[in-house]
Amino acid sequence: MNIILFSHDELKLPTLTVEDYRARHIIKIIKAQPGDILTTGEINGPKGTSRILHIGPNSVTFADITHTCISSRPQVDLVMALPRPIMLKRVLAQVATFGIDHLFLINSNRVEKSFFSSSKLHPEKMHSRLIAGLEQAGATALPTVSIHKRFRPFIEDELPEHMADYIHCGLAHPGAIAQLQDIIPLGSRNRGSSAKTLLIIGPEGGWVEYEVEKFTECGAKPFSMGERILRVDSVVPALLSQLALLRSM
Amino acid sequence: MNIILFSHDELKLPTLTVEDYRARHIIKIIKAQPGDILTTGEINGPKGTSRILHIGPNSVTFADITHTCISSRPQVDLVMALPRPIMLKRVLAQVATFGIDHLFLINSNRVEKSFFSSSKLHPEKMHSRLIAGLEQAGATALPTVSIHKRFRPFIEDELPEHMADYIHCGLAHPGAIAQLQDIIPLGSRNRGSSAKTLLIIGPEGGWVEYEVEKFTECGAKPFSMGERILRVDSVVPALLSQLALLRSM
Repeated sequence: MNIILFSHDELKLPTLTVEDYRARHIIKIIKAQPGDILTTGEINGPKGTSRILHIGPNSVTFADITHTCISSRPQVDLVMALPRPIMLKRVLAQVATFGIDHLFLINSNRVEKSFFSSSKLHPEKMHSRLIAGLEQAGATALPTVSIHKRFRPFIEDELPEHMADYIHCGLAHPGAIAQLQDIIPLGSRNRGSSAKTLLIIGPEGGWVEYEVEKFTECGAKPFSMGERILRVDSVVPALLSQLALLRSM
Repeated sequence: MNIILFSHDELKLPTLTVEDYRARHIIKIIKAQPGDILTTGEINGPKGTSRILHIGPNSVTFADITHTCISSRPQVDLVMALPRPIMLKRVLAQVATFGIDHLFLINSNRVEKSFFSSSKLHPEKMHSRLIAGLEQAGATALPTVSIHKRFRPFIEDELPEHMADYIHCGLAHPGAIAQLQDIIPLGSRNRGSSAKTLLIIGPEGGWVEYEVEKFTECGAKPFSMGERILRVDSVVPALLSQLALLRSM
């Protein structure tokens, strides 16, 4: 945990006491003492530091809560074919760690129907995985996650409404000739802070041809990530870090 | 499983019968039938295809085993502070998926001693994780893994002996001013196929200052991966895919 996160509601008083997993982490893992200054932040708000006023057997009380640092987001949205539940759990944390704005979890021909009834999709469970990803990154901006159980309404009605927000849109697709650097111009981060990128990641086994056609009709450009086939929990960090690199060059 | 892997010893006869997890995967997941052609390969050898001759209740027999395609490796070695056992399990598969040649698992001030007695370090367990990574990638080249329980002998005696093999050597270190693209020249993949890169990844909490000094004395150049703190199982795909991108540009 590289930041202790508070909700907006918790931050209404000048001191704040936590008694949940955060208190346990501070006491047992960080082994903090009264007077210590920790990195803290407000979920979907600024971050900064707080001073530990008091440590009880199962509680930690903070004072001097000073959150003034607003960190930027990388301005990326992600469309992803709903992965297997165990992968979803990891991917949700990664998505928050990398600062994705909006994650669209969608259906696809090669997504098993049972995945949509997984308990991992319960809003509280997803929330706790996203928070874990923020705590890892030391970040505060919580991604929005939406679930789209039918491919056609998503691709024909919902996605087209969002497309105007994106300056670049890439579809990861094995066998495509282009690579990511053919789609994302170097240094694009510096031109217009409102320019967002959309990346689209398929299911195990890939998109079917019809799905690729539908995405390209929407304006997505297929690109390949190379010969080696990556698991989705490697695709997410691989793609987002390549995007960050291209934009920063 | 994107490739069925055979050992050199299994490939001595014109037909080959498997009865282990590979047979179960082919029968239950791939649901293959006699006559089907599957992607197969020899561990540390070439890959190609094989035809299914016969499927028994728990066995699959192959014929027409044709392995002629030799795939290239990205020519990267990795030094990594030994991660927590659960992370090690994932990282071993990733290291094979991304085609690392040699993984050095080393001690560091912030590595817990108990990690070195983890059952995950047993050679057979590591082997099966590496194989899983190859099966994911559709690759055949098995990484070498060596374990170095003492930091000083590694950094003072062992690493210097290897340094002549590397044209570039980067140390991932939060707070460094350089980024990966300052260390790895664009398109370096095309200049001399024997030129290897060494990347060095620290423990949770990072290297201590003494360790950074020792690595830089060996010729490693510190670089930062950005503000967000990644978990080691995100660092590996992030770094290796950034490296691949830089070399291919």
